[in-house]
Amino acid sequence: MKNILIVGCGLIGSSVLRASIAKKISKNIFVYEKSKKNISIIKKINSKLIILNKLDKRISNIDLVILCTPMSEYQNIIPYLNKFLHKKSVITDVSSTKHNVLKLKNKMLKKSLDWILSHPITGSEVSGPEFGNKNLFKKKWCIITNDKNKNKVKKVVRFWKKLGSRIIFMDPFEHDKIFAITSHLPHLIAYNLIKTAQDFQKKKKKNIIKYSAGGLRDFSRTAASNEIMWRDIFFSNKENMISTINMFIKNLNVFKKNINNLEDKNLRRVLINSKKVRKQIIELKHDISKPDFGREEI
Amino acid sequence: MKNILIVGCGLIGSSVLRASIAKKISKNIFVYEKSKKNISIIKKINSKLIILNKLDKRISNIDLVILCTPMSEYQNIIPYLNKFLHKKSVITDVSSTKHNVLKLKNKMLKKSLDWILSHPITGSEVSGPEFGNKNLFKKKWCIITNDKNKNKVKKVVRFWKKLGSRIIFMDPFEHDKIFAITSHLPHLIAYNLIKTAQDFQKKKKKNIIKYSAGGLRDFSRTAASNEIMWRDIFFSNKENMISTINMFIKNLNVFKKNINNLEDKNLRRVLINSKKVRKQIIELKHDISKPDFGREEI
Repeated sequence: MKNILIVGCGLIGSSVLRASIAKKISKNIFVYEKSKKNISIIKKINSKLIILNKLDKRISNIDLVILCTPMSEYQNIIPYLNKFLHKKSVITDVSSTKHNVLKLKNKMLKKSLDWILSHPITGSEVSGPEFGNKNLFKKKWCIITNDKNKNKVKKVVRFWKKLGSRIIFMDPFEHDKIFAITSHLPHLIAYNLIKTAQDFQKKKKKNIIKYSAGGLRDFSRTAASNEIMWRDIFFSNKENMISTINMFIKNLNVFKKNINNLEDKNLRRVLINSKKVRKQIIELKHDISKPDFGREEI
Repeated sequence: MKNILIVGCGLIGSSVLRASIAKKISKNIFVYEKSKKNISIIKKINSKLIILNKLDKRISNIDLVILCTPMSEYQNIIPYLNKFLHKKSVITDVSSTKHNVLKLKNKMLKKSLDWILSHPITGSEVSGPEFGNKNLFKKKWCIITNDKNKNKVKKVVRFWKKLGSRIIFMDPFEHDKIFAITSHLPHLIAYNLIKTAQDFQKKKKKNIIKYSAGGLRDFSRTAASNEIMWRDIFFSNKENMISTINMFIKNLNVFKKNINNLEDKNLRRVLINSKKVRKQIIELKHDISKPDFGREEI
């Protein structure tokens, strides 16, 4: 490719940027970023970047646009893509929910333009371009939504493959259902657990954080994730969030009942069964089997 | 000390054993362990250990007994301590709940014997002596319940300090309230999340574990913890578990309502506030600030 444009250059955007430089994805890399702090960090990555302070006719010859802003920004960006982008271009994104993006695209994007939805499964609790990493996508799944324009799909697939991703095609509705349970609910639960610990702390006027090593610590990491990104995810996957929260509460009430009645057999079955998931995760190499004693060296 | 006795030699017992050898805690180390598999592992740690197949008069001269079995075994062990232990001995334990142990002690232990309750805050998702580590207690808090027999308390404090622990005195009821929120609820929530994911998987007939990298993975580790240990904890801390579960469900319903009504401000306040806990945890050096991108090297 000759020209790519990265819109929004935080953790994910700057990782796309670093990986694109390392893999020589295109001759020129354009970056559109509003935050002055972020721009000063990005400039240090590579002096040849073309940093845009607005989206204008300079983007007309872009081959591939990668949207890396929070989802709630997309509606502000699409009008500029409609106005300035050439129809040969292809747009993609990195958002964590897909049916809302598909809806937005159908509603707002000019019919002559193509947007192939993608979602690289990666990230961290930290935000900002200073944490970007050229290997962020390496061996990670990237979910792509198929489209009738096969050439544009191929272009997006090629892009993520070059960055090291492994590709899976998925329907946007299916995607949102699955990730509601594997990613969105775990984050919501982590936030809710920290909130509950904070309420307890306030009520009892005790500093309990000192004793967080027994479990709370690990949840606090997940619950330190970016609030704009996660608000957008929870809101845009609303129906699936509500149904998974309901499933979770239903199970929690059974758990409570089993504890209250000292139901040894029922409770133990749940505790034993959960090991199966762990085993699968290790077999799939999504985690290492080495035991974790906390993240400090012991 | 001349003689110590470790009762139960799994992850924690074998870590006490390894640390006691490394720190030359006593001249002789007695180990009482029922599992043949565990005994064969323990024998390799040190050939001079005295491994007992039953508790009998050989334990009469023990200076310090450390109970490292699941709590539900204590009631089977106490009669032998009553029968054979000299009154100069002191008993301690490593259990995760304390008011039930205090109750059991008052009910079952011979009045001439002393049991100083302790709880070293450490552990992992794995079980068994093969995972033991001599540095498991290093720089970790060890909660001790004070007692009128100050000399015996001092003895137990000295023991944990030698193993590297930092000591805090705490009332057993206070202890159980605090750890219900910082340790027991997080584990219960992790188990419940994995159960919910499994239910989803069964209902939708989909393999979702493949997509666990976005959050589920980290919970699966916690939910792989030993089921006997955790059943014992949930049952023996029943009242606190039920009240923390209720607090958690109350907050979860607020979360659900905020999502359902797209309540931006309220929802975002919760997401932002949780970062404070993370900040404290890092300041307290309970975790490292280095971002986590999954446990594989990237």
